[in-house]
Amino acid sequence: MALIGVLGGMGPLATVDFMQRVMQLTRARCDQEHLSMIVANLTHTPDRSRAIVAGGVDPLPALLDGIDLLNRCGAGVIVIPCNSAHHWYAQMAERSAAPILHIVDASVAAVPAGVRRVAVLATGGALVSGFYQASLRSRGIEPVMPAAAAQRDIAACIEAVKATRIEAAAGHLSRALATLERRKVSVAVMGCTEIPIAARALRNARVMLIDSTQELARATVAYAVERGWGRAM
Amino acid sequence: MALIGVLGGMGPLATVDFMQRVMQLTRARCDQEHLSMIVANLTHTPDRSRAIVAGGVDPLPALLDGIDLLNRCGAGVIVIPCNSAHHWYAQMAERSAAPILHIVDASVAAVPAGVRRVAVLATGGALVSGFYQASLRSRGIEPVMPAAAAQRDIAACIEAVKATRIEAAAGHLSRALATLERRKVSVAVMGCTEIPIAARALRNARVMLIDSTQELARATVAYAVERGWGRAM
Repeated sequence: MALIGVLGGMGPLATVDFMQRVMQLTRARCDQEHLSMIVANLTHTPDRSRAIVAGGVDPLPALLDGIDLLNRCGAGVIVIPCNSAHHWYAQMAERSAAPILHIVDASVAAVPAGVRRVAVLATGGALVSGFYQASLRSRGIEPVMPAAAAQRDIAACIEAVKATRIEAAAGHLSRALATLERRKVSVAVMGCTEIPIAARALRNARVMLIDSTQELARATVAYAVERGWGRAM
Repeated sequence: MALIGVLGGMGPLATVDFMQRVMQLTRARCDQEHLSMIVANLTHTPDRSRAIVAGGVDPLPALLDGIDLLNRCGAGVIVIPCNSAHHWYAQMAERSAAPILHIVDASVAAVPAGVRRVAVLATGGALVSGFYQASLRSRGIEPVMPAAAAQRDIAACIEAVKATRIEAAAGHLSRALATLERRKVSVAVMGCTEIPIAARALRNARVMLIDSTQELARATVAYAVERGWGRAM
């Protein structure tokens, strides 16, 4: 029996959102046709963005403990529905016997061909780390950073989702997207797994939003289906 | 760090529903104030109801494997958001070092004082096992069983949720509830964790529905709060 390992709790709502996407992307008529997972919903993991930006408590020991736990449970592949945690991707991949799918690779691969500018909606930590910018540039795409006020709205959106205040989060996201529209940006990657939860509460969005949670879920189901663990929709 | 162990995947949508209820019932402003969980979403566990009713493959070995896994991961308490699996509660509780909260106890405790008749909406297996009927009777409450046609609708509702067909599930549930209304039943316990997912898609329900997923989530958060693992809303 093959188990998908999910290193989660960063935040917890994003983890359940990810699990739900995997279920929706799986062609299953009964429980036994769904994919089995072991989910370490480790909410106590220190804040990733704060550690990168402000030298807060290092989350790497907690991340590696989670990787060890999932490997001990027999995970055949590991996914991490938290973009900022991918700042430590190399250290986690080195530690893990099971391969770790990369959320940024999955998300950037979903940018439609021909798109030349993509805004990056992410935590301050992820922007400072720069993995989205590097991945976009490697494909000839110009990363567009939100201006300071818009970035404050993105940060507030993420914080509100983590506190289960979804309507407030959608308001912040809506304001940030309006500034991108005025800058003629038509595609943005939601490079933080809290943002798609807020985006679902938006009335309308004229910016095309690439959803890192959904793309990681697609990559996970594709990985599982290739190995005969389940069937895709 | 205290971990809540969730033996899930029965079905997987019910497991994410349970996790989400725990998050909503927790007073958290950031990830670190949410409760950490280890979730064994073991969808391959053989069908519980079929095993009870029709002598299908015994799920007990898979259930005990899940209990062992959660104990090895250091779970301080275990919950199982599947009512039918509680047919094997005694065997699981005997095997587990961590205490296992009982979903039926939590649900029956939520019946308002003075209510004398409660319908049981559950799998055929759970009804044959009889744990809801016994628990209700021990509190002086008469359990009301759905008639054969209504029970077929309940079974179809559960099956549709497991296949992620929520609208179809709500239709079946609505028909079953209409027959209970005609029988002057005003309170029903949703004693299968798929049913609340269908109930959320109902336009209106004139029967008061006690939600086993929500009651187990409440009991879980209360257990955690009493031990200082987190704070309740």
